[in-house]
Amino acid sequence: MPTFTSHIAPQELARLASREYPSAETPVLQAAAEARAKGYDTICYPLTTDNWKTRWQDMCLLPGEDVKDRNALEQRAEAWRAKPAFLRDEITVTRLDEAEGAVVLISDWLELDASDDWVRHDAETALQQELAYASYLNAHTAVLPPPRNREHAASYARAVNACLHAVPFLELSVRISIYDPSVFRASSTPRGGRTPEPSSAVTVAPAQTPISTWEMWDLIHSTCDYNQRLSLTLDLTLPLPSTLGVLSQWLAEPVRHIFLPASAFIANAKGYPVLPKGTQAFIRDVMKLQPNIILSGTSAGRHGKGGESAYMQYIRHLEKTSPSVQAAQTEGTVEHFAQGYQDYLQAPLQPLMDNLQSATYQTFEQDPIKYRNYEEAIFLALSEWPRPGKILLCVAGAGRGPLVARSLAAIKRSGKDAFVYAVEKNPNAFVTLQDRKRREWGDSVELLYGDMRTLVVPEKVDILVSELLGSFGDNELSPECLDGAMRFLKSDGISIPASYTAHIAPLSSSKLFNESHSAKDQRTSAETPYVVMFNAINILSGDGGGVSGACGPSIQECWEFEHPRRDAVLDERGLPFTNSHNTRSAKLAFHIPHAGVLHGLAGYFEARLYGSVGLSIHPNTMDKVSRDMLSWFPLFFPFRDPLYLPGDSELHVSIWRLTNQRQVWYEWHAEAFLPVPRSTTRPGATPHVTLIKRQSQDGTLLSPRPRSAVALSPLIDAVDMPFIVETALEGGEGSKGVELVKIGQTALHNPHGRSSWIGL
Amino acid sequence: MPTFTSHIAPQELARLASREYPSAETPVLQAAAEARAKGYDTICYPLTTDNWKTRWQDMCLLPGEDVKDRNALEQRAEAWRAKPAFLRDEITVTRLDEAEGAVVLISDWLELDASDDWVRHDAETALQQELAYASYLNAHTAVLPPPRNREHAASYARAVNACLHAVPFLELSVRISIYDPSVFRASSTPRGGRTPEPSSAVTVAPAQTPISTWEMWDLIHSTCDYNQRLSLTLDLTLPLPSTLGVLSQWLAEPVRHIFLPASAFIANAKGYPVLPKGTQAFIRDVMKLQPNIILSGTSAGRHGKGGESAYMQYIRHLEKTSPSVQAAQTEGTVEHFAQGYQDYLQAPLQPLMDNLQSATYQTFEQDPIKYRNYEEAIFLALSEWPRPGKILLCVAGAGRGPLVARSLAAIKRSGKDAFVYAVEKNPNAFVTLQDRKRREWGDSVELLYGDMRTLVVPEKVDILVSELLGSFGDNELSPECLDGAMRFLKSDGISIPASYTAHIAPLSSSKLFNESHSAKDQRTSAETPYVVMFNAINILSGDGGGVSGACGPSIQECWEFEHPRRDAVLDERGLPFTNSHNTRSAKLAFHIPHAGVLHGLAGYFEARLYGSVGLSIHPNTMDKVSRDMLSWFPLFFPFRDPLYLPGDSELHVSIWRLTNQRQVWYEWHAEAFLPVPRSTTRPGATPHVTLIKRQSQDGTLLSPRPRSAVALSPLIDAVDMPFIVETALEGGEGSKGVELVKIGQTALHNPHGRSSWIGL
Repeated sequence: MPTFTSHIAPQELARLASREYPSAETPVLQAAAEARAKGYDTICYPLTTDNWKTRWQDMCLLPGEDVKDRNALEQRAEAWRAKPAFLRDEITVTRLDEAEGAVVLISDWLELDASDDWVRHDAETALQQELAYASYLNAHTAVLPPPRNREHAASYARAVNACLHAVPFLELSVRISIYDPSVFRASSTPRGGRTPEPSSAVTVAPAQTPISTWEMWDLIHSTCDYNQRLSLTLDLTLPLPSTLGVLSQWLAEPVRHIFLPASAFIANAKGYPVLPKGTQAFIRDVMKLQPNIILSGTSAGRHGKGGESAYMQYIRHLEKTSPSVQAAQTEGTVEHFAQGYQDYLQAPLQPLMDNLQSATYQTFEQDPIKYRNYEEAIFLALSEWPRPGKILLCVAGAGRGPLVARSLAAIKRSGKDAFVYAVEKNPNAFVTLQDRKRREWGDSVELLYGDMRTLVVPEKVDILVSELLGSFGDNELSPECLDGAMRFLKSDGISIPASYTAHIAPLSSSKLFNESHSAKDQRTSAETPYVVMFNAINILSGDGGGVSGACGPSIQECWEFEHPRRDAVLDERGLPFTNSHNTRSAKLAFHIPHAGVLHGLAGYFEARLYGSVGLSIHPNTMDKVSRDMLSWFPLFFPFRDPLYLPGDSELHVSIWRLTNQRQVWYEWHAEAFLPVPRSTTRPGATPHVTLIKRQSQDGTLLSPRPRSAVALSPLIDAVDMPFIVETALEGGEGSKGVELVKIGQTALHNPHGRSSWIGL
Repeated sequence: MPTFTSHIAPQELARLASREYPSAETPVLQAAAEARAKGYDTICYPLTTDNWKTRWQDMCLLPGEDVKDRNALEQRAEAWRAKPAFLRDEITVTRLDEAEGAVVLISDWLELDASDDWVRHDAETALQQELAYASYLNAHTAVLPPPRNREHAASYARAVNACLHAVPFLELSVRISIYDPSVFRASSTPRGGRTPEPSSAVTVAPAQTPISTWEMWDLIHSTCDYNQRLSLTLDLTLPLPSTLGVLSQWLAEPVRHIFLPASAFIANAKGYPVLPKGTQAFIRDVMKLQPNIILSGTSAGRHGKGGESAYMQYIRHLEKTSPSVQAAQTEGTVEHFAQGYQDYLQAPLQPLMDNLQSATYQTFEQDPIKYRNYEEAIFLALSEWPRPGKILLCVAGAGRGPLVARSLAAIKRSGKDAFVYAVEKNPNAFVTLQDRKRREWGDSVELLYGDMRTLVVPEKVDILVSELLGSFGDNELSPECLDGAMRFLKSDGISIPASYTAHIAPLSSSKLFNESHSAKDQRTSAETPYVVMFNAINILSGDGGGVSGACGPSIQECWEFEHPRRDAVLDERGLPFTNSHNTRSAKLAFHIPHAGVLHGLAGYFEARLYGSVGLSIHPNTMDKVSRDMLSWFPLFFPFRDPLYLPGDSELHVSIWRLTNQRQVWYEWHAEAFLPVPRSTTRPGATPHVTLIKRQSQDGTLLSPRPRSAVALSPLIDAVDMPFIVETALEGGEGSKGVELVKIGQTALHNPHGRSSWIGL
């Protein structure tokens, strides 16, 4: 639910001041009472009056000519600089109850990024003075004047950072519009016709694109070290561009307030106030951040119909039709299930090392989709089973028995003659299994207590059923466990799941960045993946090859595991000598269409259970494969430091699944490149496609695991990229003569000192 | 002094093994004895033999065809992966004394960056095995095989990082040549005709330029978090390009070894071995890092004259003619004075807050140049003094009296009638002053005890002499102190110094980065400037405008202070109301011609004492103005995190001198941009030059301090840059239609929680 704030304009306050108001004691209290009566949660008003503006200008912007009284004026200014203070009629409020829960507007004529050093200096002094007063009155939020001048945005940022350290508690909110009109008009200096500052527009490219104000915000935000008391007040006065890529950046930022004047509304056919399409869409999206909507000028009667309340009603309507809000409010959706867990970092489960609690099993057994799909997969496998006679199943990792029950149901439906072994290593869950066998399953099931990697099973089975998958597929050691279970699967037997793949995408989220850095030891806290229900994030990558034409899609596959696997070399016990066949690595190239800050990687999995039945949390396939499945949130691989990525750049991500005899862990790393026109095309770069063809024919250089070497090795990238680039060179459009210039990189992320986070 | 290491080739070891050697017990010990006899400090040899190479290849690079014995082979490989171990004849040494102080070469056929996943995997296992053995034998340094494949350099880096954590003590040294021939030839895979990996050359621009190997090294170095046990072995087998900008990058890296085969030498007219010009110049430069020179093949008699010893003699000759070495060995130079202080971080003095020790005064009084120039300045001021009659001088901050003595000497030389007041606030130094007055100066000097900012001086003086300058000019609060001293300077009086300016340049230095991050609290340790005698650094900026034509020179001025100043507004005591007139800020654009990593800013000052007499530690002017002056090392402003800068990028640095009533401090910040061709030229960007002209005519918007506003405000940049860019747009060459794309930024650096580092 968004909150609503009524913006009280200076004229309105003046009007109130001029008349009697019985119910309240001051104009602001009167305005607040009226606003609450109209259904607003709180009000928003200017902290200072024109008297303050006049005094500040007289002191700080001296006339150049009449030098005689200059010294007197300058002495007055110095006296103020020495002890900054307000006179009563320079500010609008004096009482705690006037400021309680209110959003106060700092003087918007303060140019913290003015081109003149001394204007900047005195504006900063005034800012500190106004914030100190707002803080004295316990105001909740102070809205800062918008940054106007890219050239001196760093000075604006430095001043705000200083205030965050000087003023306690108060939330500072930078008011900014989604694109920057000031590039083409004069920056509003109070006195004397200062010409605009096109310098930013001229020297810094993004300033002319819709992205520029985001770039200024990001400079301020990161310069203030992502301070949690620094937020955004998005000014939607101007109609929005409908290029959603650009807008989605803001959804990864701390947007706490939306400034929406009546003038931003247009009248619909019936004359009621509505918003332009682009703004509508954005409001729907931003609702998931539950912002505070600051409505302004709603009492001016701009629109024929609906009156003052029409504006709030319309926003409420947009909220109700917001996809994310609808999903969250619909029973049975993962969004509904995840209420309260958005952007909350959880350590992944380690069911192999730890024996799960009964309550944990219960939570996951409630998933309506996962087990339905498992039963369907088992049913299909049984139905298509070629040989006559009894079919032997084994549930490896039976837990409290959900897959056993589903297996029995599937057997019943298939009408086949089958028997089920149930293997479980958790002694506590094993008691539950015994209870269910006695009460439900009887002789159709035999329970076996022990670790599937070492346990002796009386006979080899035809179908091995397991649910060992994590959010990243293999991150709960399904490959290692099934290596052991293969001992009791017949050579022509089948495994359910048959295969699973891990997928990643680069993401931006200042919230997740703060979360993963809030821990005591920032180094280690940013070195392990977390399970997270994403909300305030932005996937930075786009589809479609990028400028070089060499990039993969927005979300890309890292690697795959298949079962039963034929490639592992086994000892006499039927176990692999080492775990090295379960190491994996991937190098993936992502196209970054719009500027953004990289904070981490989103991790997903897809699994094929049997035939066309599967499980997926991959955003592009989850609804098709396993809609409303609740068991897995995505994985979040954090980066220690944010990495700035310009628009149309490329991000090359390396990720490794590593192992020793005791542990499995991931390491990840990224490099950023900017495609620029190539001066000369280079010789001797034969398209690699011929290379890999030759390789896959006589696998001289392929490892003993050709399938994996072809399907999983980074060779794929090494092959595709130059190939595509080369063809592009022969007159492919866009990428013609492009070369990648390296512009940055992240740290290498690995569990420090190998403190395993997944124990074998 | 460099050390020398003799490289023992495998054939040489084989030859030694085949014959009897009385003096030593093993071929390696024999080789070591012979090398020492020839004047080498130690030897360098391969750790493994061909037997190892053969076994590894048989195990890890399986033939694709004959699948039948594949399983046996693969079992052998798995057995090795499970328990990696050498056979005796696979390694060259077994004894501690064989490895003592030696540089061992890891098998150079190991492809840690192979394109095939499994070749990489097994190469890493072999690397760990070889390093574990080298460490077991206490070898000092292990030289790693060169990275060959940009596409998988990240995997190489990850493997090295893992080894640094797995193996204690041992120094790992990455062997790499200054430019990358492998881009155009096949990477040397032992078996099977693997085609080269041009992918890097194709997809990553720098790979074809001389810079590419540095980019690979930097990726490895930074991925290993600048580990102090990771060093460089520069391979100078190939003749060097003479573009020194590219080479100077390496001087900011931990170059511990130089690999120099006899084949790199050419014969001079007389037939003696000498090096090509480019290599000569580089060797001279790199001598300041005191590298270990690994000579190879010197006994082969490649060159007619001089025999085996000629090579070492020639390198010694280059060392003697190395400018940095010569400077360090010449009495009286700052380099000689600074021996042992190179790249050592010192906290700047705070003579205002702390009363200095007599020994500290003594050190600085030994400066032969500084006081000579002061005396000259005073002499000129006296000589040119217009009015007849007694001239009153005041030495503000007399310390132990060096400037008093110089003033008296100057008075004597000038033949003028003058009198000297000496003001000092350090009670201990004041005793020394009394002693000197009694013994040396008599009635020609009157001593005044107290702080020049508050002290009452009997009469106003004509000439005020002070030495309050720091490495950055104003960083020891000279402006604040002289504000107070102005009270007793006549309105037409002279200040010596008359003015001083602060200058910065962006620099790269992994050494200084490690130094400033070694402290306990890394955040604060990287937040204050240090005084440093620079050695292993590289100034990243170049002269000449850059691609946009908008950049200043390599080293740029931040701001200036002038004395006596007319702009401050004074109270009845003659003191400024606030210190705000001493705040400064600068925004400077630097051209970065070659890729590098930004670690901090170098800070310098220039001062004008009187007329043309001055003091300077600015690299471009110090030799002209005050050659061999010893009193000041440069200032180093560190950045918390390294920032990667591509070639031809621009760095926009903001730096502020800030103040409150109690403290003065600096804050600094940088943004990186890459100039790219502009799609469309933008309208409405009027050249700013008109703007500033209008401003300086009627200074409506100028501060009450026009001089400073013009001379110091970032307006200058805001003006110049767009102006130049605009003209460029009207057909200036090079920068035609260039726009700057932001590619990164640093954190904002400030003393945390305002813990002042300069107390007023």
